[in-house]
Amino acid sequence: MTQPKKRIAILGATGSIGDSTLSVIAQNLDRYEVVGLSGFSRLDKLLSLCQTFLPKFVCVPDDKVDFFHQQLQQLGLHCQILSGKDGLDTLASHDDVDMLVASIVGSPGLSSTLSAVKAGKTVLLANKEALVMAGELMINEVAKSGATLLPLDSEHNAIFQCLPTDIQQNPTAIHDKKHGIKKLWLTASGGSFLDKTFEQMQNASVAQAVKHPNWSMGQKISVDSSTMMNKGLELIEASYLFNMPVVDIDVVMHPQSIVHSMVEYVDGSFLAQLGSPDMRTPIAHALAYPERINSGVERLDLFSLSNLTFLKPDLTKFKCLALAYQAMQAGSYACIALNASNEVAVQAFLDEKIRLTDIADMNEQVLNQIQSQKIASLEDILAVDNQARQLASRLLP
Amino acid sequence: MTQPKKRIAILGATGSIGDSTLSVIAQNLDRYEVVGLSGFSRLDKLLSLCQTFLPKFVCVPDDKVDFFHQQLQQLGLHCQILSGKDGLDTLASHDDVDMLVASIVGSPGLSSTLSAVKAGKTVLLANKEALVMAGELMINEVAKSGATLLPLDSEHNAIFQCLPTDIQQNPTAIHDKKHGIKKLWLTASGGSFLDKTFEQMQNASVAQAVKHPNWSMGQKISVDSSTMMNKGLELIEASYLFNMPVVDIDVVMHPQSIVHSMVEYVDGSFLAQLGSPDMRTPIAHALAYPERINSGVERLDLFSLSNLTFLKPDLTKFKCLALAYQAMQAGSYACIALNASNEVAVQAFLDEKIRLTDIADMNEQVLNQIQSQKIASLEDILAVDNQARQLASRLLP
Repeated sequence: MTQPKKRIAILGATGSIGDSTLSVIAQNLDRYEVVGLSGFSRLDKLLSLCQTFLPKFVCVPDDKVDFFHQQLQQLGLHCQILSGKDGLDTLASHDDVDMLVASIVGSPGLSSTLSAVKAGKTVLLANKEALVMAGELMINEVAKSGATLLPLDSEHNAIFQCLPTDIQQNPTAIHDKKHGIKKLWLTASGGSFLDKTFEQMQNASVAQAVKHPNWSMGQKISVDSSTMMNKGLELIEASYLFNMPVVDIDVVMHPQSIVHSMVEYVDGSFLAQLGSPDMRTPIAHALAYPERINSGVERLDLFSLSNLTFLKPDLTKFKCLALAYQAMQAGSYACIALNASNEVAVQAFLDEKIRLTDIADMNEQVLNQIQSQKIASLEDILAVDNQARQLASRLLP
Repeated sequence: MTQPKKRIAILGATGSIGDSTLSVIAQNLDRYEVVGLSGFSRLDKLLSLCQTFLPKFVCVPDDKVDFFHQQLQQLGLHCQILSGKDGLDTLASHDDVDMLVASIVGSPGLSSTLSAVKAGKTVLLANKEALVMAGELMINEVAKSGATLLPLDSEHNAIFQCLPTDIQQNPTAIHDKKHGIKKLWLTASGGSFLDKTFEQMQNASVAQAVKHPNWSMGQKISVDSSTMMNKGLELIEASYLFNMPVVDIDVVMHPQSIVHSMVEYVDGSFLAQLGSPDMRTPIAHALAYPERINSGVERLDLFSLSNLTFLKPDLTKFKCLALAYQAMQAGSYACIALNASNEVAVQAFLDEKIRLTDIADMNEQVLNQIQSQKIASLEDILAVDNQARQLASRLLP
């Protein structure tokens, strides 16, 4: 019996997660159908993806609807055009969509991810802000709607793979004594500055900071990787996703990016997921879960691996990681503030207004200044986000 | 609600697996009760275990019954004494036993393990000969009786932990395409001679060969480890246990013995189990499966690990491993012959009659000389075992 194809929408389809997802789908067209794509700045690329995958829906910025309509017409394509935030929300929760790949970077991806969760979709989560900013809301909505959250970040996907089925299907079970979970271990490559001094990090150029040794990624996430803010955001994400307090999540530096993360059990076992640093593996895992499909990734050649090393993170040099632990312990408002401040600071660094190490200092000051407050709604989240952005902007030179 | 205690019999209780099992049980006396113990040569130790764990049954060699009865009486202990092969079979299949720890080394452990399987027990398997010699019978009997086989070897236990629940509970599912199993990877420390030349291996003393760098084990298994025959036997064992052809099981040298084995999936994921080289971890895993319990093992300190390395095995130096691949492809009779020849050869080495490297040569000659034959019963097995021992003995100086 042939299973019906899974109908997939990819938000942020023109980014690197989009590339990898479409590459996996292209090899498994008997199982998946692309029904929706969204793009923001690279509309030429979006157009070319429409030509290849013929989605029913395409979502573009509000002011690009007419332009994109013309382009589609010239190519004789008949996609229905949606636009802006409402368009993303509509697509994410559309009846014709079974699975949403949520890969819009940063807070703009928040609302559509939440829409998909509320609509009970299977959400493949690459937008970490959805959990960093709205973790509690998101997890509550998952419980209400029966949506399924599957992590695409290689680290979270690795942890997911190393948990027993019971916990994969019900994260609250992670605290059942019988499962014997002791700790979650997030591995971190250490980014471009692992072996550099603080002074070298201070004087780093944008080009140096966005050049990641192992992974090919977007600019924002590459800078976050170089400051380890990325690992901090992943820590918060993991805490929500796996229902685990941050004190029970440890970070280990593993410069080779072969072990993607681990789960430690009370009997002394560590289960680890290893693989080539290629996003198509976690994407293929999440697309097919609980089955497995070919990802097109080149097989990891164990015999060609250089020595694998594991080191303790330097929380003085990588202060952003320490701030994430503090923020998650302070509460949701602090995570939102940290994320918002960081977005402002990273942009300022990319604009060459501040130094790389100023990012952590700005984030720290914003965390010190932001007021403790209860977060009960999307409005509360956006209010704190806004406050933090203002505080951060005031700190800019 | 309190669960009834699992009633455990340990055959080969005075060896290192016995030590480790009793150490785990001693920390989990709310869950386990030792109802039976057997010993062969170290009866003083067996007596002391009887004092500590007060088993209902104790099994000793036939000619030691009276002596052991006296000893028990002197201590005021009231264990029922069983003896010899029949005693082991009785204990293994006794109604008062829920789980059997099968840790008698070599072919003498075969019959009792098969008895336990036929009686539908949960069998924690440390006796690899049970599968190497009687793999087909054993697996067929498991299917008939509904017995559960749980591997205690750290490698097989690691693979077991890295498989999805469906396959853990039904090994034939390993070939279901949906599970996406690509390969099983057995790790091998390489024993004492990994960095030594063939000539050094040739001239090795017994003391050098039994000194394993990472694991504390018995003499026979330590010699097998130094020739990699142990890995060869594990390969055959894994092939039966996981219903996987040997061509889909690869061996990787990993001198640090931290990664205990791996499963490779079609999406590019490798799942690995890591831990300190301490048998109490796989034993605790198997005792508690599908739950987890404390094993008393010191936590692996990831930060203190030296570099982890992975190397291709040298099948010329470690010819015993190549012979195991050949034997398993030739069929059950060849595995039985290889195992029998190896037992004779290892004993001859321990008796300083042959050199360490002669073991592989003897095994190869026996494999060349043994006739291809169908194996359909325990009698067939013992006949081939006997033929091979005779062939091997004739090769001794």
